[in-house]
Amino acid sequence: MTSTPYGIGLAGCGTVGTGVIRALQRNGELIRQRCGGSIEMSVKRILVRDRDKPRHETVDASLITTDWQTLVDDPTVHIVVELIGGTGLAFDIVARALSLRKPVVTGNKALLAERGAELFALSKQHNTPIHFEAAVAGGIPIIKTVQEAFIGNRIKAMCGIINGTSNYILQRMSEAKLDFATALREAQDLGYAESDPTLDVNGWDAAHKAILLATLAYGFPISPALVHVAGIEQVKPIDIDFAQQLGYVVKLLAVIRQHDDESIELRLQPSFVSKHHILASVNGVFNAVAVHGDGVGESLFYGRGAGEDPTASAVVADLVEAARSLAHKLPHRGFLPWGKEGRLLPIEETRTAYYVRFDVTDRPGVVAEIATVLAQHRIGISGTHSPVNPENPDAEFVDMVFLLHSCPFGLLQQALREIAALNCVNSEPVVFRIEQI
Amino acid sequence: MTSTPYGIGLAGCGTVGTGVIRALQRNGELIRQRCGGSIEMSVKRILVRDRDKPRHETVDASLITTDWQTLVDDPTVHIVVELIGGTGLAFDIVARALSLRKPVVTGNKALLAERGAELFALSKQHNTPIHFEAAVAGGIPIIKTVQEAFIGNRIKAMCGIINGTSNYILQRMSEAKLDFATALREAQDLGYAESDPTLDVNGWDAAHKAILLATLAYGFPISPALVHVAGIEQVKPIDIDFAQQLGYVVKLLAVIRQHDDESIELRLQPSFVSKHHILASVNGVFNAVAVHGDGVGESLFYGRGAGEDPTASAVVADLVEAARSLAHKLPHRGFLPWGKEGRLLPIEETRTAYYVRFDVTDRPGVVAEIATVLAQHRIGISGTHSPVNPENPDAEFVDMVFLLHSCPFGLLQQALREIAALNCVNSEPVVFRIEQI
Repeated sequence: MTSTPYGIGLAGCGTVGTGVIRALQRNGELIRQRCGGSIEMSVKRILVRDRDKPRHETVDASLITTDWQTLVDDPTVHIVVELIGGTGLAFDIVARALSLRKPVVTGNKALLAERGAELFALSKQHNTPIHFEAAVAGGIPIIKTVQEAFIGNRIKAMCGIINGTSNYILQRMSEAKLDFATALREAQDLGYAESDPTLDVNGWDAAHKAILLATLAYGFPISPALVHVAGIEQVKPIDIDFAQQLGYVVKLLAVIRQHDDESIELRLQPSFVSKHHILASVNGVFNAVAVHGDGVGESLFYGRGAGEDPTASAVVADLVEAARSLAHKLPHRGFLPWGKEGRLLPIEETRTAYYVRFDVTDRPGVVAEIATVLAQHRIGISGTHSPVNPENPDAEFVDMVFLLHSCPFGLLQQALREIAALNCVNSEPVVFRIEQI
Repeated sequence: MTSTPYGIGLAGCGTVGTGVIRALQRNGELIRQRCGGSIEMSVKRILVRDRDKPRHETVDASLITTDWQTLVDDPTVHIVVELIGGTGLAFDIVARALSLRKPVVTGNKALLAERGAELFALSKQHNTPIHFEAAVAGGIPIIKTVQEAFIGNRIKAMCGIINGTSNYILQRMSEAKLDFATALREAQDLGYAESDPTLDVNGWDAAHKAILLATLAYGFPISPALVHVAGIEQVKPIDIDFAQQLGYVVKLLAVIRQHDDESIELRLQPSFVSKHHILASVNGVFNAVAVHGDGVGESLFYGRGAGEDPTASAVVADLVEAARSLAHKLPHRGFLPWGKEGRLLPIEETRTAYYVRFDVTDRPGVVAEIATVLAQHRIGISGTHSPVNPENPDAEFVDMVFLLHSCPFGLLQQALREIAALNCVNSEPVVFRIEQI
């Protein structure tokens, strides 16, 4: 069998882009063998912002361009890999590639979560797939699993830890009793967090991934504006201590769930997870996604969520898919929205138990005042706790924790607004979900 | 887009076959939508042994035949699903289907492990794929993961718990202090073990699956005759107790590992696994496979390994693959051997630490006699233990346990043969691996 050579245009040559070049060099012959000798791939163009930046020795300088159209339009480029990030230039590159019927491989979760509806429409129009395994949990083939392996399953729920940076920070806060700022600095020093960690710690990196997973499972694009997202900036050591005392660990959890009326619950929040659940054992920068399908039942997928090699591995698998679809002139193997217009369950209607922390002025009557407001909203209290600060036992301002029975989030928000207005409460209450998974 | 209807010939209508019929009925419309409306599938023929056996109400009696050629040759049957098991008639069905260029979906690990070389040759000759996701760890898409998602990875190792029956029995022996026979009976009563549980408890069901995983990862057929397999029949409560005291759990573990000289280690044995390893948390009938790829690093896949719905889910996913390859006239998307003739590492050369239990006559000098033989073979001892039986503290015959440092298995076997010949040793020693994973 003669092999068909495919040229790759690599837009972006940072960590992952360099990883792709190195993986193709290291294992290119193995990949060719595994494809029955029928497919060969090589990088033909590399788009960078700064031509003068030092690069890994495996990067062939003669392939470098700073002009994106030169890359996309190059006739020796058959597949475009978009790894530059953002939703502006990346959109132009992907759109142009699709219009030229060049399959796209991307790891850009923000692009697909924010502008996926436009791009999937172009993908359909030009009958050219977008592959995006690298966009969610790099080393875990969760896209392929949901889209292909579980194609016969109604997805009842997916719960995942899909931001390694946050997970690392929470673990370090837990095991080394660090505060948030110190743990974040440590993650930055180790290269686990970027110099601008905003999207990691405010939950939006994970939310973009959760939006993609829900889109795959239910088949319709989801507007990020409708998704409830909270990050880990407000987590304090006291919360982690308290979780431990109660038999939980604090995780930044993506929760996706289909209700009986087919509405979709989709939210991203710091959550209390039972220490006995397998997700509680997911430490460091690892990711994990638990999937509940009506056929397969409970399953779980665990691996490295980011980093040069794991993410490059996902890009390479997608490159093989793209090359195969070109070789066999497949009509389309990428994702296309297939679902009826679905309904997101408004966050106000979602129900869990809660952990709420208030910053209060320590005087008699505080618990009664807060409890009275909760009672007026018929929200049950399963426990209250006000830990004494050993360094300052007579502090005027203290943290007061309430554990609340399951109720709609909207009802809780109403009650918290009233509680926040009480004289004894000094700032916005902090809320974590207590997940029953 | 008009949809192409594909007819399915279902050879075997037991638990999984019925599950396939029910899954297609329950989620057929969802599957059609997810395929972009382009693929429809329906069961056209059902092969059974006994026409009079009562069947689930969803099984259409008018489709039933007892003649396998009627099913395979039926012109309305485009894809053949083989779920009858065994390596005789099942082989004839698969071979005939391939010769008619009808893609095959099978869950038959024994067939592929024992006669895969012949069948994959036919698959290549007739350019018609065999899909077998259902053959390994039903609800876990490990075949697709190794074959497609990790196509860019050199697979360094795979360690798995891939026999749910054994895992259930070991767990019950551990948590309820049952002996093997009682735990097996309980598993049979619950439907977790078949009336003839031989292949589950002697390790060969798991070994067949491990052979398939290694074949996928390294690309060459592996003769079962060369694979070292031990089951769980010899595990006693004392082994489980002792493992717990040392911080381990006993698991029936498949170990597949590529060494630096590219030889492949492949074995199936009861093993001590650190209680801190995520595999130690895999309980009941669940399966899990840890995969270490040179790109993705460590990953793990967890789910139900058997049962009607999880296995049917795998069959349905393969049916979609098969229908897609028919619809798009794909040359081949199933597995074909691609590797150079590989070398299995002889079991004698594999190295781990060991736990060995001897049945000895309790008299002074026993430890010295055994230790002397081990010393003559330069095998280091890290501990010995002879638990007192509280019900019979003066027993003449007792269990004596030795923990041994890492050494080649062949060396251990030599020493154990000499020890078994000692007067004080009453039966074959029982050996478990202590795995460093």
